[in-house]
Amino acid sequence: MPLTVPALLARSAGAKFERGTIERRELGEHDVLIDIAYAGICHSDIHQAREEWGSATFPMVPGHEIAGVVSAVGSGVTTRSVGDRVGVGCFVDSCRECARCQAGEEQFCERGMVATYNGRQYSGEPTYGGYSTQIVVDENYVLRIPDELALDVAAPLLCAGITLYSPLKNWGAGPGRRVAIVGMGGLGHMGVQLAHALGAEVSVLSQSLSKEADGRSLGADRYYATSDPETFARLRGQFDLIISTVSADLDMDAYLRMLAFEGSFVFVGLPENKQSFRVFSLTAGRRSISGSNIGGIRQTQEMLDFCAAHGIASLVETITADDVDTAYDRVVASDVRYRFVIDTSTIPTS
Amino acid sequence: MPLTVPALLARSAGAKFERGTIERRELGEHDVLIDIAYAGICHSDIHQAREEWGSATFPMVPGHEIAGVVSAVGSGVTTRSVGDRVGVGCFVDSCRECARCQAGEEQFCERGMVATYNGRQYSGEPTYGGYSTQIVVDENYVLRIPDELALDVAAPLLCAGITLYSPLKNWGAGPGRRVAIVGMGGLGHMGVQLAHALGAEVSVLSQSLSKEADGRSLGADRYYATSDPETFARLRGQFDLIISTVSADLDMDAYLRMLAFEGSFVFVGLPENKQSFRVFSLTAGRRSISGSNIGGIRQTQEMLDFCAAHGIASLVETITADDVDTAYDRVVASDVRYRFVIDTSTIPTS
Repeated sequence: MPLTVPALLARSAGAKFERGTIERRELGEHDVLIDIAYAGICHSDIHQAREEWGSATFPMVPGHEIAGVVSAVGSGVTTRSVGDRVGVGCFVDSCRECARCQAGEEQFCERGMVATYNGRQYSGEPTYGGYSTQIVVDENYVLRIPDELALDVAAPLLCAGITLYSPLKNWGAGPGRRVAIVGMGGLGHMGVQLAHALGAEVSVLSQSLSKEADGRSLGADRYYATSDPETFARLRGQFDLIISTVSADLDMDAYLRMLAFEGSFVFVGLPENKQSFRVFSLTAGRRSISGSNIGGIRQTQEMLDFCAAHGIASLVETITADDVDTAYDRVVASDVRYRFVIDTSTIPTS
Repeated sequence: MPLTVPALLARSAGAKFERGTIERRELGEHDVLIDIAYAGICHSDIHQAREEWGSATFPMVPGHEIAGVVSAVGSGVTTRSVGDRVGVGCFVDSCRECARCQAGEEQFCERGMVATYNGRQYSGEPTYGGYSTQIVVDENYVLRIPDELALDVAAPLLCAGITLYSPLKNWGAGPGRRVAIVGMGGLGHMGVQLAHALGAEVSVLSQSLSKEADGRSLGADRYYATSDPETFARLRGQFDLIISTVSADLDMDAYLRMLAFEGSFVFVGLPENKQSFRVFSLTAGRRSISGSNIGGIRQTQEMLDFCAAHGIASLVETITADDVDTAYDRVVASDVRYRFVIDTSTIPTS
């Protein structure tokens, strides 16, 4: 029998969240039932709940930064047990057969991965995310959260963490490499910690110096204000890798000039508008512009284990179900240090 | 004593070429005197002679696709002898000390390489290119042209050839890789031959199908017209590497969608205007946009040897000194199959 569970629902684009219930599917042979403890608020939740990214499905229960504990498992589950501390990220299924899935890059599944919310299962059922008290997920899409990581600060790793870890690893951030993180927000503060722990020399390129103390305490070696035009002149040719977490329009040529020979500029933030560049900015140093999109299950687990080993977690502000609408406005205003997580025990109607 | 040699000179931006003389420096210890046989006409000659790329130095003697025979060597020259068949490409010196020079990537020299023409020697003397009968060049910047290559069809390899060979090698074109060459001109017709000889599956993306027979005879497996919108729909996700040789503005998103997972779009052509793209076109498949700029001395020699081994050369139309102005107009009108080379024996005033 399907399970009726409490959740926070947006009934239409931009509507305030309401307490209500949703149905989770009956536990299948390979499914895991997770009691959700915390759900992070990702900026993409806001874009989708406000239908800013094209057609969305309502009611919507956002949330793809999920941390909790296994409370039941299907008869065929072999990798997870009741009581395990687990997480769920941006997707809950993929075709498992295409070249991408086989390579552990399920986020690029050729059939299209099944998004944790505002998506559809291959059966056609809509998916509902982590602003809820329980979720049913196939064991192959459930991550293990190491004991060293508290669940509240681990939740944002499932999206923000892997979004930065993946490009840092794929573009070879490590000792002797000069990495710049553009933007010191939910994504950026993860990038600083991860790049530092990987051994890279880390710079932050933030609009202002207001978060410099935080940045340095998280591992930044250098911190620059992009509102100061001097920054761009000073840093010409200085970075092997620049990862941009922001969604604002960028003066691409100014950023590309800060790349060293064969340096890469990688977008993980998604500006709405087209970005433009002079081709000479690339040919002048065999530079590249690329984009990265979360990470696969294998790499996400690697990231969680890496965070546990290096004492890395998200800095969070824990909120209740009543605070979510306000939190959305604060995220849009960049007024959060650095990630909101919802204590999902506050969701059920009292 | 400096040498006075006949040359074709542009006295001012856009002026018709005049026969005249220039001075070549006295043969230094490490210098080679080359009797030029042929000089290719590169589109960049036109941009510079017409001062379309910013401030230029006049009089100008263009030409950086130079093929000839050594007629004298300095006392310290060890690598070249009188009678050697040799070539000179886009640069005639570099600092030799920076990381780029040490790595054999002199075209990215941190001090700035010395361009073969419209440049300045580190001593301050202006440089004059290959539209001339003789040139003096340091032996380290003189390439060996294998016996299998005739000098006329070898000349364009020194710029057009290496411009395509370098990105094909650096981005791993070879068996099992699907490569598209955008534009079937002086650069493109080299790209088709080189990519085919490297073992890649080669497609041409040309405005029309007018040069399809040539493309296929040079090694293209497929040939598509970009004027047909169907082309872009049909080829979604089909290429590992797209190299653009054109200087027209491109619908970047349409081209990026033709890239497979982790595919790269590489500019070797230099559009004047900024190019723009949606970031999603990159993040959707971890794709990249990059730029490549000619190649270093070591790789240029490797390319010449590769061409000799595989019977690759430029298709050329040989012209006299009197034809250069007309040839420029025809290059701009894309009316050449596929490279003009000047028979420099026609330069001296009769």
